[in-house]
Amino acid sequence: MTTTTRRETEIEAAKDVPTITITREFDAPRELVFRAWTDPELVVQWLGPKASRMRVTHWDCRTGGSWAYVDGRDGDPEYAAFYGSFHEVREPARLVQTFTWAGAPDGVSLETLTLEELPGGRTRSVAVSVVETFEIRDMILSSGMSTGVIEGYEKLDELLGTERS
Amino acid sequence: MTTTTRRETEIEAAKDVPTITITREFDAPRELVFRAWTDPELVVQWLGPKASRMRVTHWDCRTGGSWAYVDGRDGDPEYAAFYGSFHEVREPARLVQTFTWAGAPDGVSLETLTLEELPGGRTRSVAVSVVETFEIRDMILSSGMSTGVIEGYEKLDELLGTERS
Repeated sequence: MTTTTRRETEIEAAKDVPTITITREFDAPRELVFRAWTDPELVVQWLGPKASRMRVTHWDCRTGGSWAYVDGRDGDPEYAAFYGSFHEVREPARLVQTFTWAGAPDGVSLETLTLEELPGGRTRSVAVSVVETFEIRDMILSSGMSTGVIEGYEKLDELLGTERS
Repeated sequence: MTTTTRRETEIEAAKDVPTITITREFDAPRELVFRAWTDPELVVQWLGPKASRMRVTHWDCRTGGSWAYVDGRDGDPEYAAFYGSFHEVREPARLVQTFTWAGAPDGVSLETLTLEELPGGRTRSVAVSVVETFEIRDMILSSGMSTGVIEGYEKLDELLGTERS
């Protein structure tokens, strides 16, 4: 039987720069966490809040590639659309993307995910998003983003457990 | 005879956020300035300092596309390589890109160019770059970037004059 350690998701809004840093540990090796971020068949199983019904409409995961997805919730086939670019895919340690919600296309964030190996086949994930202004950063924080992140990472815990076994 | 108004390039490092804002006016209509940023045959004629010998190695200018170029100066066939993604190409008003110098791939900037129409068929160009930390921003500022920007925009003035006539 696998012992699963539940971890806190830490969401930090820096005081001096318009960034959001999300830190979380996972009971799975880095290669597997990286694959869960980059393989679209895995991504749709965990990204976003529990209520989401994510559908990938474009996925070209390579340095210089791009992605798009829609969240089609019950009764609303296209609740929200998102798109962005893969600036760099550096397997298995680093993923740099842009991110936009199609409803506010002037708000673009640059997101850098770093995966660090921990002892015991575990992984620390650090995701830093930066935007141009504190106003945009605060809009993102007040959009309910944290629910999506926390619930998504809980789904990712489950998925990683399944993929390991 | 066309009267050409020389304009100052304003480079501003914000106090409160790690951005660089570059503002410049051009004696050419917005469509033409936008084309000079997006058509690779025009880009190579003006981007970068006067000493540069820019060679585009990849150019896919569309939302979700990407680009790469090298600056091959005299005696040094690959002085520096740069690459990035086109997050959004919104003709003729807005261009959002990522930007990395291959020599320091962990330093990524998100760059938003906005072109505003001015009376008399002129254009104001506002380019905002944001990075994650003030340290990265200050490294960029001390890299001689301003020379490249100012000289590049002078070459762009000449190119726009040629393309208009």
